Amino acid sequence: MRNPDVNETLDSWSILHRLYAFDRRRWAALAADRRAAVAQEAQACFAQLAEDQDHDLAPVQVLGTKGDLLLVHYARGFEALAETEMRVDALALNDYLTPRSSYVSVLELGLYDASAKIHARLRERELTPYSPDWHQAFDELLARQAEGASARLWGRIPRRRYYCFYPMNKRRGEQVNWYALSYDERQALMRDHGTIGRSYHGHVTQVISGSTGFDDWEWGVDLYADDPLTFKHLIYELRFDRASALYAEFGPFTTGLQFSVDELPAFLEASAVPRLRSQPAAV
Amino acid sequence: MRNPDVNETLDSWSILHRLYAFDRRRWAALAADRRAAVAQEAQACFAQLAEDQDHDLAPVQVLGTKGDLLLVHYARGFEALAETEMRVDALALNDYLTPRSSYVSVLELGLYDASAKIHARLRERELTPYSPDWHQAFDELLARQAEGASARLWGRIPRRRYYCFYPMNKRRGEQVNWYALSYDERQALMRDHGTIGRSYHGHVTQVISGSTGFDDWEWGVDLYADDPLTFKHLIYELRFDRASALYAEFGPFTTGLQFSVDELPAFLEASAVPRLRSQPAAV
Amino acid sequence: MRNPDVNETLDSWSILHRLYAFDRRRWAALAADRRAAVAQEAQACFAQLAEDQDHDLAPVQVLGTKGDLLLVHYARGFEALAETEMRVDALALNDYLTPRSSYVSVLELGLYDASAKIHARLRERELTPYSPDWHQAFDELLARQAEGASARLWGRIPRRRYYCFYPMNKRRGEQVNWYALSYDERQALMRDHGTIGRSYHGHVTQVISGSTGFDDWEWGVDLYADDPLTFKHLIYELRFDRASALYAEFGPFTTGLQFSVDELPAFLEASAVPRLRSQPAAV
Amino acid sequence: MRNPDVNETLDSWSILHRLYAFDRRRWAALAADRRAAVAQEAQACFAQLAEDQDHDLAPVQVLGTKGDLLLVHYARGFEALAETEMRVDALALNDYLTPRSSYVSVLELGLYDASAKIHARLRERELTPYSPDWHQAFDELLARQAEGASARLWGRIPRRRYYCFYPMNKRRGEQVNWYALSYDERQALMRDHGTIGRSYHGHVTQVISGSTGFDDWEWGVDLYADDPLTFKHLIYELRFDRASALYAEFGPFTTGLQFSVDELPAFLEASAVPRLRSQPAAV
Amino acid sequence: MRNPDVNETLDSWSILHRLYAFDRRRWAALAADRRAAVAQEAQACFAQLAEDQDHDLAPVQVLGTKGDLLLVHYARGFEALAETEMRVDALALNDYLTPRSSYVSVLELGLYDASAKIHARLRERELTPYSPDWHQAFDELLARQAEGASARLWGRIPRRRYYCFYPMNKRRGEQVNWYALSYDERQALMRDHGTIGRSYHGHVTQVISGSTGFDDWEWGVDLYADDPLTFKHLIYELRFDRASALYAEFGPFTTGLQFSVDELPAFLEASAVPRLRSQPAAV
Repeated sequence: MRNPDVNETLDSWSILHRLYAFDRRRWAALAADRRAAVAQEAQACFAQLAEDQDHDLAPVQVLGTKGDLLLVHYARGFEALAETEMRVDALALNDYLTPRSSYVSVLELGLYDASAKIHARLRERELTPYSPDWHQAFDELLARQAEGASARLWGRIPRRRYYCFYPMNKRRGEQVNWYALSYDERQALMRDHGTIGRSYHGHVTQVISGSTGFDDWEWGVDLYADDPLTFKHLIYELRFDRASALYAEFGPFTTGLQFSVDELPAFLEASAVPRLRSQPAAV
Repeated sequence: MRNPDVNETLDSWSILHRLYAFDRRRWAALAADRRAAVAQEAQACFAQLAEDQDHDLAPVQVLGTKGDLLLVHYARGFEALAETEMRVDALALNDYLTPRSSYVSVLELGLYDASAKIHARLRERELTPYSPDWHQAFDELLARQAEGASARLWGRIPRRRYYCFYPMNKRRGEQVNWYALSYDERQALMRDHGTIGRSYHGHVTQVISGSTGFDDWEWGVDLYADDPLTFKHLIYELRFDRASALYAEFGPFTTGLQFSVDELPAFLEASAVPRLRSQPAAV
Repeated sequence: MRNPDVNETLDSWSILHRLYAFDRRRWAALAADRRAAVAQEAQACFAQLAEDQDHDLAPVQVLGTKGDLLLVHYARGFEALAETEMRVDALALNDYLTPRSSYVSVLELGLYDASAKIHARLRERELTPYSPDWHQAFDELLARQAEGASARLWGRIPRRRYYCFYPMNKRRGEQVNWYALSYDERQALMRDHGTIGRSYHGHVTQVISGSTGFDDWEWGVDLYADDPLTFKHLIYELRFDRASALYAEFGPFTTGLQFSVDELPAFLEASAVPRLRSQPAAV
Repeated sequence: MRNPDVNETLDSWSILHRLYAFDRRRWAALAADRRAAVAQEAQACFAQLAEDQDHDLAPVQVLGTKGDLLLVHYARGFEALAETEMRVDALALNDYLTPRSSYVSVLELGLYDASAKIHARLRERELTPYSPDWHQAFDELLARQAEGASARLWGRIPRRRYYCFYPMNKRRGEQVNWYALSYDERQALMRDHGTIGRSYHGHVTQVISGSTGFDDWEWGVDLYADDPLTFKHLIYELRFDRASALYAEFGPFTTGLQFSVDELPAFLEASAVPRLRSQPAAV
Repeated sequence: MRNPDVNETLDSWSILHRLYAFDRRRWAALAADRRAAVAQEAQACFAQLAEDQDHDLAPVQVLGTKGDLLLVHYARGFEALAETEMRVDALALNDYLTPRSSYVSVLELGLYDASAKIHARLRERELTPYSPDWHQAFDELLARQAEGASARLWGRIPRRRYYCFYPMNKRRGEQVNWYALSYDERQALMRDHGTIGRSYHGHVTQVISGSTGFDDWEWGVDLYADDPLTFKHLIYELRFDRASALYAEFGPFTTGLQFSVDELPAFLEASAVPRLRSQPAAV
């Protein structure tokens, strides 16, 4: 708690990623009007979540066979996230979606520079560490950071066409161990790392969420861009940055095309009307 | 046995974690009165286990697709635990639950300081190590520890809303190996580790259980809190503590919302009454 | 972006590999004329994709039980690739194909020598790095590379009988870390690596695609040859090359026999007409 | 063969562990008299195997969801083991058992001290290594060991209530490699390791079987005790022993409660008669 | 190509291993005469493959639950192998076999000593490396090796009762890396390794196949013996040999009992006629 060896974070949206396989065979076997009704119910639910100020939602058409549909959910807190999860599970569409994997995290800003400054300022004020006054002063300085970052913290899901998600850890190897570095070393590495990221400004929107205590990796990274090659170039360049080259461990990558909630029925129908299927398939 | 290189442990509840996927499709296809009867049977069984002084039980709604329902079972000994497992397996509800994973462990207090003191005291008394007298004296001193810790050892499952579970090991790497450290080194590391934990006092309730010989990791950690961000901040801070930074290996994390046994029928119904499902789904 | 520590790449085709198990049991249970119709629909679709100048497609009969049929898709961009994926998913044949795995990547030429030359040339011209003039000059020099390599970049799938695919990474070990090498070291290693590859000229056609940001490995390698032993000898020899011996990590290998789209119906029928199956199999 | 760098082993029972999930849903759907007949057939078969002098069998109720029933089979040789496997597969009960995993091994005594002594004695006798006389003398000395250890080699499955199984390897790391140690170093480490084991004499019965060439780990370890905490304390203490701390790699742990073959019908029925299931479950 | 740092190999049979689970439940539900017809069709096909001079086939009853039946296929080239695979897939029996895993490889002799000698001889002749004359001379010397080894290269599957298969790699660790050793070091290590193997002459028949470029490991090893303990003793002894101790990485082991194609119907029936199954099992 307010450990000077540990950077503070600002936390905002609770986030759930869910990756599904879509059961085309059973979907196509439904009558067309039933398909329309199921799609419409889902679309209405998704639209509400995407427009509500306490939630956000983005559907992604995933490339390859890791899954067909990815849903990115934002909610204000775990209660709202759990309720959203259940609400989507209760959709009739859910019968045609098989979950493949998920990711639970909380949008965060990692404050390396700001944490160091807060600790420095409190030292200047000569407040006794961990005293009530010290905690109150800390609260105030941190709250000021949160206000300044409010737009980034509570931003909505970027509506760009191409999408990439991957979880990651900082390495805890036997010789190369991020968590055994000093605060100053980590701060310097994160600063250089940020420099590369910023050189892609405008080309890509990045959302970092923390998942320590929530899921199997330490962070989730969502990237949104207008050109998918941006992901390839950015992430390849970052691999040579020392913070990544030495200390990053990457989980599985998911890539796809974000679409608007309005297009959900079209997405579902796209694979459901093969010419030959007028006779139901023998099973 | 009473090896001075090995810390003693005090052991209490036998614990079983079981994570299930809930088969909403088949559940929703049941008639409403049948669903009510099945839910009621399960609720009655769970309530008995949660109130019985020889058992405890907590249901958790899991976030994400690792599973839907987690049951934490406590019982006095493996016989009672096995019987409980079978009793829950015999519920009609079990037909709608697909097991995803489980964890078998025993609640423990790891006595680093106390073990060192017991060995020291017996050396002072100049008892011959491993003699009957020595064993008897050891028994008495250990029993005194157990009495003093009885409330922690036999405490019931904390009834806080947010829940996190993960298994962990102490690293046995080629260069960095917990089990090759001296007793004194380990004792010092665990003391520092405990200091961080204690700074979260009141914010989080932690239950450590040992699983050496029972399951695939060495310990299971249950955390209970009123704010899920506590998990994120605590575990992130602990990563920088030397005992964790250098020596901890973490298994998969499960997080969710604990609910009371009374809410079980509502939990099961929440996803079973979609508007569109009045006509049974074509399979 | 145009980091002198990072080699530029030229990027062309968006590529999707999809590996399927073929459900022979359900296929054989179809009436012969239905099988013929389904096969014909798929063949027509595949033929169009294989002949279209904005797409390419190769079907491969896979050896062993990792899968039965591999489809290699080329498309101009992720939009076209996603559309192709959906179009094939909508085939009636898709009901008899169970996806096993996939790979998303973009054909690339890694410019080690050319990137170094471009940076050198811009230094000679004394342009301010990252100035608009510098970027424009960079664009022009890179475009010249792309023109010169156009045939290799936009080449169609090699029509050779034997096929091999594997994904790979450059190692990021604690001591042996490709991404911690200097540009010059990497350039020298890649030059030697290329020398071995070129000694197989004529015997094998190699297609490298980059997947950083798209899939779980950094590169995909497709090899096409007239003799499958070429794969064995080439890859074995490459293991001793320093770039591979020290720095390559290999994913799973898939090998098989490419066939022409015309042969698709024969491929599907080959296993569908067992003599004993005149009576439908009891299930 | 009789390599002085390699300890000899004495080998006896061929052992098969099989872990099954029990399909309660389908079992409970059977008529009660059919369940009784199926259970009785299995019990008769198991009883014969458990009493036969050329076989042994132990059923274990497994804790947690790794499986429900574990069968430990002993047979004299692989022919008998294969035949036993098939015989159990042919039981009607087998329709309700889904195999989860298995382990194939041969009970062994690893002769570190005795092998060294045999080699020493043959050197004293100045027999030419690997000559017929030398081999004959080796045979005789080894046979004498086998006679002396006959009770341990051909002992029957210990009938203690609590059960634990895990497979293990000796580490072959890049710096820490058991197989690169000298004979004398390994002999000394195994001697210390044995000392801890022996301090649990009476509390636990241990069966070591070798699986090099048969299964994915090098050894299987079965532990039998009257108190499950014995497993926890013994294995935890052994982790600090140098042979384990530095060189042991552990596979998955399975724990449970051994029951007698007579109790098989009760075990199967325990979960089959839920009050609510009088109406067959809707599927 | 003919790299003096790389040992040449002689390559012969294309080999496919396929491991299947046998679906006893569905098999037993077939009428007896249908089972007989299906078994006879498979036996006829297997017999043809086992007797044909361009193919070979061995069925193995696998111990444990990794699978029930392993088929080892030999064919002259990938075309023949692919055709064989399809032909077996088209058997009615295939409906009762679920593939678990497979292995694609090519029988090889690794020529460490001979490659060194060929290079030495060509240096003596002072032929310009990689000139047409040099290549022709190389061809001739290699062909002479192949002639001399023809019986080993094109030998048929050894008909011994006990069987063991495992894939393996040479380690490419960060410090311990086979592919970074000099030719001479590797040659010396392989020579010592071969000495142990030869001391088991007569007791075991070993078939090495290379799978670089074909499957996920570098080599497959098939062992055939009259006593299964031979596998245990040989492989255990080899673990201490430096080539294995330091450089070998082992994949999963499969062990079982080879049977003759004539016994296939008996193998299939062994588990299909339980006494209690006269009434068809309720599903």
